[in-house]
Amino acid sequence: MTRLPETTISRLTIYRRYIKSILKKGKPLVTSEKLGRKMHFKPSQIRRDLSYIGQFGRRGKGYYVRKLCRGLDKTLGLDREWQVALVGAGNLGRSLSAYPGFRRHGFEVSVIFDNSPAKIGKTWLGVEVLDIKQMPKVIKERKIKIAIIAVPYSSAQQVADILIRSGVKAILNFAPYKVAVPEGLKLKNIDLSTELQSLSCFLTK
Amino acid sequence: MTRLPETTISRLTIYRRYIKSILKKGKPLVTSEKLGRKMHFKPSQIRRDLSYIGQFGRRGKGYYVRKLCRGLDKTLGLDREWQVALVGAGNLGRSLSAYPGFRRHGFEVSVIFDNSPAKIGKTWLGVEVLDIKQMPKVIKERKIKIAIIAVPYSSAQQVADILIRSGVKAILNFAPYKVAVPEGLKLKNIDLSTELQSLSCFLTK
Repeated sequence: MTRLPETTISRLTIYRRYIKSILKKGKPLVTSEKLGRKMHFKPSQIRRDLSYIGQFGRRGKGYYVRKLCRGLDKTLGLDREWQVALVGAGNLGRSLSAYPGFRRHGFEVSVIFDNSPAKIGKTWLGVEVLDIKQMPKVIKERKIKIAIIAVPYSSAQQVADILIRSGVKAILNFAPYKVAVPEGLKLKNIDLSTELQSLSCFLTK
Repeated sequence: MTRLPETTISRLTIYRRYIKSILKKGKPLVTSEKLGRKMHFKPSQIRRDLSYIGQFGRRGKGYYVRKLCRGLDKTLGLDREWQVALVGAGNLGRSLSAYPGFRRHGFEVSVIFDNSPAKIGKTWLGVEVLDIKQMPKVIKERKIKIAIIAVPYSSAQQVADILIRSGVKAILNFAPYKVAVPEGLKLKNIDLSTELQSLSCFLTK
């Protein structure tokens, strides 16, 4: 399978959410027209996106809801549990580790790292905060592939470098810093205050 | 001034953060080469971005740090305080209202709305949770222009409609739903679990 574009992946996650809700209602079939109406997408867009990932229906009848669900789960890597390492036990890290949407989708923050003696050894929602010095060892041992960076921007690159050396392949970076990663790794940056700044910039114009 | 592209705004917020740190150190001038090295951007990109918003330096000398800071603050609407309404006092809303980066940039969550009798009337970090029925009145009275939606996806559109009718002009939407807004309004969608799903999708390939 070829690599899907980011925008397609983003739509697939939206489709999946809605299609899960239809599955719960026990509907066996759904058309792209109905999906489009409910989710504010063009039916042609939905058909194109879904055709990338497999064959889930019959022309003129619609998609088989259960089959489509399974296909979306598989494509998005949601047919399994992912262990996630969280680096940074500050306010932002605390907020993120408590975020209910992660666990619901099979992402388990299973270890937290920090460099503050006041935080190391504490437990947070059942997850121990470990010394950042143990990061390479623990990540290798547990074969963790996904990490979330929630440290101040001055240490973001250093943390990313250690994560990558330890075997992490995909990083969600909340530090407001453009972290550099080698090719073949996946990096997503989210800066919540930048998002608000783009709103205030708009209102200022 | 013409409307800046999203990607430019996003870079300006990164520049601003770094330039603030230079200002603190008391450096009067900085070159685009130095900025580029420190932030992993091409100097030509930085010069182009900054030329959009004003004249802050002299060829061959660099940018005047203090002037540049003021220019960035003004462009991004960060030379003032913004009142923000938060809708949804669930786990996600709680995390967001505690997010330290908002207040630091002049965004003050000054009111929270929810429809749960168990939450209405409670106080969160000094901010009262009001009945969602009071939303139109309170938002109009306080002239709030920015809102954050952190409700389940099934009520996201309804909440957005009420916010817009009440005078809100810019919305940060954390509900995993493609909210429709009329032209002339600004909407930013952030779906944290979608971001993680794009990582797991990458690892699955």
